[in-house]
Amino acid sequence: MNWSVEDIEMMSRAIKLARQGLYTTQPNPCVGCVVTKDGQILGEGFHIKAGGPHAEVHALAMANSDSNLGAKGATAYVTLEPCSHYGRTPPCAEALIHNKLARVVVAVEDPNPQVCGRGIAMLRDAGIQVDVGLLQDEAYKINPGFMKRMETGLPWVTVKLASSLDGKTALANGASKWITGPEARRDVQRLRARHCALVTGVETILADNPSLNVRHSELGSLADRHSESDLHQPLRVVLDSRARVTSDLALFAIESPILLVSCDDYPAIEQQSWPSHVKQVKLNCDESGRVDLNELFKYLGKQCNSVLIEAGATLAGSVIAKGHGDELVLYQALKMLGSSGRNLITLPEYTAMSQIPAIKLVDERKVGADTRLTLDIRS
Amino acid sequence: MNWSVEDIEMMSRAIKLARQGLYTTQPNPCVGCVVTKDGQILGEGFHIKAGGPHAEVHALAMANSDSNLGAKGATAYVTLEPCSHYGRTPPCAEALIHNKLARVVVAVEDPNPQVCGRGIAMLRDAGIQVDVGLLQDEAYKINPGFMKRMETGLPWVTVKLASSLDGKTALANGASKWITGPEARRDVQRLRARHCALVTGVETILADNPSLNVRHSELGSLADRHSESDLHQPLRVVLDSRARVTSDLALFAIESPILLVSCDDYPAIEQQSWPSHVKQVKLNCDESGRVDLNELFKYLGKQCNSVLIEAGATLAGSVIAKGHGDELVLYQALKMLGSSGRNLITLPEYTAMSQIPAIKLVDERKVGADTRLTLDIRS
Repeated sequence: MNWSVEDIEMMSRAIKLARQGLYTTQPNPCVGCVVTKDGQILGEGFHIKAGGPHAEVHALAMANSDSNLGAKGATAYVTLEPCSHYGRTPPCAEALIHNKLARVVVAVEDPNPQVCGRGIAMLRDAGIQVDVGLLQDEAYKINPGFMKRMETGLPWVTVKLASSLDGKTALANGASKWITGPEARRDVQRLRARHCALVTGVETILADNPSLNVRHSELGSLADRHSESDLHQPLRVVLDSRARVTSDLALFAIESPILLVSCDDYPAIEQQSWPSHVKQVKLNCDESGRVDLNELFKYLGKQCNSVLIEAGATLAGSVIAKGHGDELVLYQALKMLGSSGRNLITLPEYTAMSQIPAIKLVDERKVGADTRLTLDIRS
Repeated sequence: MNWSVEDIEMMSRAIKLARQGLYTTQPNPCVGCVVTKDGQILGEGFHIKAGGPHAEVHALAMANSDSNLGAKGATAYVTLEPCSHYGRTPPCAEALIHNKLARVVVAVEDPNPQVCGRGIAMLRDAGIQVDVGLLQDEAYKINPGFMKRMETGLPWVTVKLASSLDGKTALANGASKWITGPEARRDVQRLRARHCALVTGVETILADNPSLNVRHSELGSLADRHSESDLHQPLRVVLDSRARVTSDLALFAIESPILLVSCDDYPAIEQQSWPSHVKQVKLNCDESGRVDLNELFKYLGKQCNSVLIEAGATLAGSVIAKGHGDELVLYQALKMLGSSGRNLITLPEYTAMSQIPAIKLVDERKVGADTRLTLDIRS
C-alpha cells in the first residue's frame, strides 16, 4: 500500500496520542485515534484508563461536538484494530459504523483472540474502506506487553538492575545508599508505573524492607500529567517459597494489591490473617526449591501484560539465564566499588563466550549523572 | 585581554595543527603555529617528531617561501611558549626575533623549567609584542602529560580497562576472546601510540604472552596519516618484582625498548643475557612485595610524559586506589558474564560509599558495538 503524506502524518499523531496512556491504561493497551476530513482534524483522543472510553469514542465525540462538521464521511486513524466485542464498553467498530465513517486506517491488528480481524471485518461488512498496516512496527512497540501476552499468554518481562561501572550493587558490607542518583531512582518510579506487576524475592524484602509502590511525589513531570488516583499501582509479587514474610513489613502498610507466591510442596502456615489486599498462591517449585519461573509467568500472564523484575542478583540472573526476560533496564553509575563489592547478576558458570546471553542495545541515555541502558535480551 | 575574532580563529587553527603530532612527538609536547599578516595566513606548521623542526620553524619557512610576503612584521600564533634554549634544535624565540615578527600570541606558558617565561622575555626584550593566554585551557589539554611532568616530575597516568556490563573481564575459566569488538581493540592501539610508556604486570605477561607493541596495520585511518617509522612505540614496562620473565616471551621478539622492573631487595638473577633493547632496573618495593608505585612513577617521570597502565585487576586497582591515576579509559561491551566471571578491578574493601574513588565523565562514545568511557580519576 502506498500511504499518503497525510496518512503518515495523522497516524504518527495517533501513535503519539496513544503513548499518553502509558502509565494509566493497564491492563488495557494504549490506543490513539485521530478523525479527519479533507485534511482537517475533527477529533482525536486516546484510551486513558481501563473501564473508561476507548480512543475512538473520545475522537468521535470531539468530531461530533461541532454541529457543522461531524464524523460522517470522515477518516479515522487508529493505532490498534477497533474492538468488536462488548467488554466494559460497547465495541468501537460499532461506533465507527454508527457514525458513518468513510474510511478507517488501522496501524496494527489486535492480537486479542476476542478481536483479531473481527473488528476490521465488521467495518468492511458495513461498507467502510479499511486500510491496515500503516506504521505497524511503531504501533506494535507501544504495547509490547499486550502484544506478547495476547500472542503467547505470557507477560513482557523487564529486568531492572542498577550498578557501578565495575558491576557492583553494594559494598561488601551491604552499603549501597546510593549507587545511583535521585534522577535514576525517580526514573525507576516511572518504570514501575508502566508495568502491571512488580516481582521481587523474599531476600530483598527481608533485607531492605521496601514498599515497592509508585510514589506520586517522586514522578517528576509525570505527576503533573496524571493525578495520583489515575496512576496504576503495580501488583506487588513476592516470591517467598518458604512463606517467610510477616505482616509487619513496610510492603503491607500500603493498600495496593500484593501477591505472595510460595511453593506448593510447602506446608502452608495459615496463621497469618492477611489484609484483603494480600493474596496468596502456591506454584510448582524447581529442583532448587525456588518458585518455578515458567509457572510464575504463566500465572501472571492471566492478568498482566508486563512484569518488572526488581530483585537481587540471583532472581534477576535466573530470569535472564532461563530466557524469560525481554528487556533489561540497567542504570549505571559513574562509580567503582572494587571486586569485594556485591555482584550485579548471578548467571551459570559459562565456559565459552558463545554461551553468554545475547544482548542488543535499544536505547541509551543520561538520567542525571547516571546512564540508563535499555537492552533487548530476547534470545 | 580582549582577543579579536581573528586572534581566536588563528589560535584555534594552531591548536588543531598541534594535535596532528599526538602520535609522533613523544617525549616532546605537541605544538602548532600559524603566521599571519593582515588577516592572511602566510605559514603554518606543527611539531612532528622529537629532534625535527619545531612548529614555529615550519611556519616561518612556509611564510618566507613566497618572496612577495615573508614573515617580517607578521603575527605568529603559537600554542606553547617558544623555546629559549638550545636543545636538539636552536631556540624558536631566536628564530622569531631573527625573522622580525611584530607580534607573537602564546596560548600557554611552557612549564619546562628550562623555558618557563624566558622565551616570552627574549621576545619582549627584542621589541616584539607578546600576548599570552589565548585559548589557554584548550592548549593546556593538548599536552596533559608534558604539563603534569614539567610541573610535578611525574607522568600522566592513564589506566585502560575493558569489561562486560557487569564488570567482568573474563569467564571463570579465563576465556575472554573477545569481550570487546575489533574496533575497540584497534582503539587500544591508538591509545598505546600516544603514550610514552605502557606498564603491565608480570602476571599478565605470563598469562597472555602479549607483544604490547603498536601495530601499524591495526591503526585504521591513523596508518594513512603516519608511516610505520614515524609512529612512537611506547616503552614497554613490566613490573616483575621477582624477576620471573624469560627471554622466550613474545614481548622480547619485538625490538622496541623494554624496561624490566624488579624489587631492589631481590637477589638479581643475572644469568639471562638480555638483548640490547631490554633494560633492567631495581626499585624499592612496598610492604606487599610489589614494586612501589611512587618509586615507579618517579622513575618513569624522568623520561616519560605519559604512561598507560594495561594490567590486571590488582595493578590497575592499586594505581587508582593509591591516587596515581589521572584518567581511566574503560571499554564496555554489551555483554553479561555473570558473577562467576573475573572482576574488573581490585580496590580496598571500602566500608562506606564516601570512601570510593571520585570519578568524573570526560568523554563517552561508541567504538564499534562497545562504549568507550574516558573518566577523570584525579581525586
